[in-house]
Amino acid sequence: MATINENFLKLKAGYLFSEVGRRIRAFKAKNPDVRLISLGIGDVTQPLAPAVIEAMHEAVDEMSKHETFHGYDDGHVGYEFLRQAISQDDFKSRGVQIDIDEIFISDGGKCDTANMQEIFGTDNVVAVTDPVYPVYVDTNVIAGRTGTANEKGQYDKIVYMPCTAENNFVPALPDKPVDLIYLCFPNNPTGAVATPDQLRQWVDYARRNKAIILFDAAYESFISDPGIPHSIYEIDGAKDVAIEFRSFSKTAGFTGVRCAFTVVPKQLKAYKKDGRAVDVNSLWHRRHSTKFNGVSYVTQVAAAAVYTPQGKKQCRKIIDIYMNNAKLICESLTKLGYEVYGGVNAPYIWMKTPEGLSSWDFFDRLLQKANVIGTPGAGFGPSGQGYFRLTAFARPDDVKEAMRRFAEV
Amino acid sequence: MATINENFLKLKAGYLFSEVGRRIRAFKAKNPDVRLISLGIGDVTQPLAPAVIEAMHEAVDEMSKHETFHGYDDGHVGYEFLRQAISQDDFKSRGVQIDIDEIFISDGGKCDTANMQEIFGTDNVVAVTDPVYPVYVDTNVIAGRTGTANEKGQYDKIVYMPCTAENNFVPALPDKPVDLIYLCFPNNPTGAVATPDQLRQWVDYARRNKAIILFDAAYESFISDPGIPHSIYEIDGAKDVAIEFRSFSKTAGFTGVRCAFTVVPKQLKAYKKDGRAVDVNSLWHRRHSTKFNGVSYVTQVAAAAVYTPQGKKQCRKIIDIYMNNAKLICESLTKLGYEVYGGVNAPYIWMKTPEGLSSWDFFDRLLQKANVIGTPGAGFGPSGQGYFRLTAFARPDDVKEAMRRFAEV
Repeated sequence: MATINENFLKLKAGYLFSEVGRRIRAFKAKNPDVRLISLGIGDVTQPLAPAVIEAMHEAVDEMSKHETFHGYDDGHVGYEFLRQAISQDDFKSRGVQIDIDEIFISDGGKCDTANMQEIFGTDNVVAVTDPVYPVYVDTNVIAGRTGTANEKGQYDKIVYMPCTAENNFVPALPDKPVDLIYLCFPNNPTGAVATPDQLRQWVDYARRNKAIILFDAAYESFISDPGIPHSIYEIDGAKDVAIEFRSFSKTAGFTGVRCAFTVVPKQLKAYKKDGRAVDVNSLWHRRHSTKFNGVSYVTQVAAAAVYTPQGKKQCRKIIDIYMNNAKLICESLTKLGYEVYGGVNAPYIWMKTPEGLSSWDFFDRLLQKANVIGTPGAGFGPSGQGYFRLTAFARPDDVKEAMRRFAEV
Repeated sequence: MATINENFLKLKAGYLFSEVGRRIRAFKAKNPDVRLISLGIGDVTQPLAPAVIEAMHEAVDEMSKHETFHGYDDGHVGYEFLRQAISQDDFKSRGVQIDIDEIFISDGGKCDTANMQEIFGTDNVVAVTDPVYPVYVDTNVIAGRTGTANEKGQYDKIVYMPCTAENNFVPALPDKPVDLIYLCFPNNPTGAVATPDQLRQWVDYARRNKAIILFDAAYESFISDPGIPHSIYEIDGAKDVAIEFRSFSKTAGFTGVRCAFTVVPKQLKAYKKDGRAVDVNSLWHRRHSTKFNGVSYVTQVAAAAVYTPQGKKQCRKIIDIYMNNAKLICESLTKLGYEVYGGVNAPYIWMKTPEGLSSWDFFDRLLQKANVIGTPGAGFGPSGQGYFRLTAFARPDDVKEAMRRFAEV
């Protein structure tokens, strides 16, 4: 008898965005003529940069000729031309030495953050922030690292680290030992960033406890404050204890193109139960080459174009459009008397709901009255209750219209 | 202390093709001027069909404009235009009804066959053929469904079903109950196919035992014999017990483009330990939307072009090139007195090594003396010992030259 992985049955309802989608579809079915504006799911709206488009056309042409056709990406870890560009422009330029065999190209940051836990034992204690990007938690539930969820939606065995206005949305160190720590800065959903001092505390904690930090830096290109690190490896000693996730999804508008990468330093160790150290880089390489088969050649060429002088300039311009949106949202909502966080070094704006409304009640009110879509903070965890996430990824005209509607509600 | 998933340490040496690659690199380092011909790894060499190229250019242009830009593939299961084409042309055309919500688009058949086991319990008994595509086994080792490997490289708890010339490379039903059965027809590596009667036996077995068949049909487009099923769903009752994997990698030369799909019928059930039935389609949907983020839009448009009248004709022509290669290899080797299997309904030729040589010895001899690369049968399992796999994916001129060199050795 084929049995299922019963851990799946522990998962709460649907993935957050599926539930949001369900409510939107229900609204649309009843109100087919209403034009909704979405400041909800973190999907981009600006077209790809011209340098990226040009590179993709050239790559497609290469695929049409014997001499330049590309089949499997041997080794499945990504073409050297792309890993070289990353090593140089994302790291060396910031004083960080990352070798190309520490870089693994993939088809998405979500996939990487979801899959990484597979190389670790099921006995690890996992720490996540609350609120948190649901993928970190759900994939650990599926793998069996948790018990069942309580009425607040929190799973037994996971250590939740509350992030609220009181601690500026940067979690305190846990008071019991944890083994795998998911951190995301700039943060989704709160838009918070971590200072070098704050990150150093985490690196020191991990070194003391032989823990590993899974550092999601998918939004690093939105950092405007020069004092904020873009990579955790800017902190001394981080290469001994941290894996870093990056993505082209938001940096270059690749949500529909699919490219990301993960850095696993060669000096990073995890441990057998008997205490003996094992190379994490080799484990991830084995996982990557056994369960994955490389990223589309055309996509990898597209990603490399992001690092050309033209590509950089054009992608910067797109990011500026989004950050102008963020600025407008923050200013408008503040003027209306809302309590607003994030939006300065991140494309996410984290607002307190008015009048003590629950996150989902505010979601419904905003959908019904303003026809604007956001994401309920409670969907990211209990500490997100009473908060609401808006994203800066809509088109500028839509953001202006959404702010006008906010003012009317 | 962060501990590793110690199941990784059970895995033997490297992934087969990594070891092949290692030996080739060592040879090249010593013999930089020798031109090697590869009939080894199953990578294609013909450029993409013109209809596919044209569609990709159009899709890239769409990504350059606000009005036609595509971000995330909502729901992550693939665009309807592609799933419709698949439902119609891969299934309805053969009398099989597969709804579009039974089709999941992905970035590769390897990924799908590797990931599918995650939705099943670790207590399932897994049956595989011997020889077998290593990914089926390795991913179950990583998940903890096996013990350690014996000196033959076979893992405790896995049921191996020998496939040899004696049973025409189609395995007999196992003599003890198994829960998850990996079958691949047309087969990699043996090139064998299964008749409707043979498949019916397996479907009946699965129905009797509440087992699930994981049917890899990645090579179905190479079938020339009209009596051989392209899909396991051509067998009555298969939708109750089988998941089918398909890929564009070989059908349309997409090894560097990355697109595949998996069919999970809505009526397919697996079971909780208490015997209660659970929908497998929903579980896979949950896994897919939690750990995966959809396939590149450009790639999906490219895949859809394979189903246009022009695309079909052009892809057919490419397959014919490969099958002419297969024919030449079979005829040449037979003339030279080798015992040869496959190559008629599959792009793989499975030959017996001469003089009782081991597979790896023959690999080394062929590499050293003929400068031709193949894949040692033993790499696919102990029943592959004394066999050798050649693929039909090289360029016709290279195949001719390889056959000339074979004749000389």
